[in-house]
Amino acid sequence: MTAQGRTPAGPFSDAERAAIYRAIRERRDVRGPFRPEAIADDVLMRLLGAAHAAPSVGLSQPWDFLILRDPALRKEVRAAFDLANAEAAAMFDGERRALYSDLKLQGILEAPINLCITCDRRRGGPVVLGRTHDPATDLYSTVCAVQNLWLAARAEGIGVGWVSIFRQDDLRRILHLPDHVVPVAYLCLGHVDELHDGPELEARGWGRAAPLAPHIRTDRWSD
Amino acid sequence: MTAQGRTPAGPFSDAERAAIYRAIRERRDVRGPFRPEAIADDVLMRLLGAAHAAPSVGLSQPWDFLILRDPALRKEVRAAFDLANAEAAAMFDGERRALYSDLKLQGILEAPINLCITCDRRRGGPVVLGRTHDPATDLYSTVCAVQNLWLAARAEGIGVGWVSIFRQDDLRRILHLPDHVVPVAYLCLGHVDELHDGPELEARGWGRAAPLAPHIRTDRWSD
Repeated sequence: MTAQGRTPAGPFSDAERAAIYRAIRERRDVRGPFRPEAIADDVLMRLLGAAHAAPSVGLSQPWDFLILRDPALRKEVRAAFDLANAEAAAMFDGERRALYSDLKLQGILEAPINLCITCDRRRGGPVVLGRTHDPATDLYSTVCAVQNLWLAARAEGIGVGWVSIFRQDDLRRILHLPDHVVPVAYLCLGHVDELHDGPELEARGWGRAAPLAPHIRTDRWSD
Repeated sequence: MTAQGRTPAGPFSDAERAAIYRAIRERRDVRGPFRPEAIADDVLMRLLGAAHAAPSVGLSQPWDFLILRDPALRKEVRAAFDLANAEAAAMFDGERRALYSDLKLQGILEAPINLCITCDRRRGGPVVLGRTHDPATDLYSTVCAVQNLWLAARAEGIGVGWVSIFRQDDLRRILHLPDHVVPVAYLCLGHVDELHDGPELEARGWGRAAPLAPHIRTDRWSD
């Protein structure tokens, strides 16, 4: 018997659990190639629904979703990326810089949809339950929404790439964001045919993922 | 045919997709009651593996996992919560304050495991690919790990509650965190019998979740 307004909290079936871990394991940061066909409206709404079901500090739901469809607008975003990416490349030296410059780090113009997920720092008013001692928690809620969407997208066969190489003021200007709205995640979404088995930066020789064990400690921090 | 090192990117089966959306829909912020039995080590390792499979900026994997088992340590954390929570209650007025004080916002001592997920702001060195223009992206990566764990926990029948009402310096002192390590999420984990159908803050009359539609805009911000 479950009380009214409650759901039994037991584990999912083995098949359901396997699906969850499959989405977590196969989710990739995708920079292309995206297939040209549109994302169906019902699929997009399911993805946004997944994001909107995220936990939020004090039930403040600080996120908003800007769906960028206008090609001219996307060209402006792409130009802002190019500017920032040139600045970023200059921060690396020698071989690293050459390797960096060869990486494809966005799919702004190719992806059928670009989606900017923002955080309204004023949402919920001046005092938000749970945010009284850590003002970053609204940003964290917004990222929970991003990750929900990312996993749902994998299950829908949609690749998602998170582009973070922008001067934030450029994105604000292009997207007309007020000062109290932070662009947390700029995402490129589209159908893809295949995914890398592991992180693309590993496949491209940029770095290697570390194993889990050294990240686990008991009780207190130790180096 | 899929190229070597690649996985077909098509949609999951209907049953698999349903499992993903079920986890997203049923995931709750759980403050108890937690069942007293331990979380099996293999289950805990699967949850940490899910977190560790999160995307991270520049493949920096900035997260670490502190598993708090020591009861004395947990009592210190609980005292830090009580202090901050009294400060938080004082920020609300009248009926709101009374309602706030009646809410149960943590399960620090009852949950069989407390887990602090931290972000090492130095991970990956002074220049991290993708973090060159938004220094918060390592915190965002860490939150992606939190959300992966949260969804996997639902599938395992484990409730998770995120406790954010601490003076951050108190957590740092108790957990011996160095200055460059930020406590992003303090989580209480344990088996639970049932879950609220919707956000607990809604069931308790604290607030109401907004529908999705007003959160969606096209191309540019508008009020």
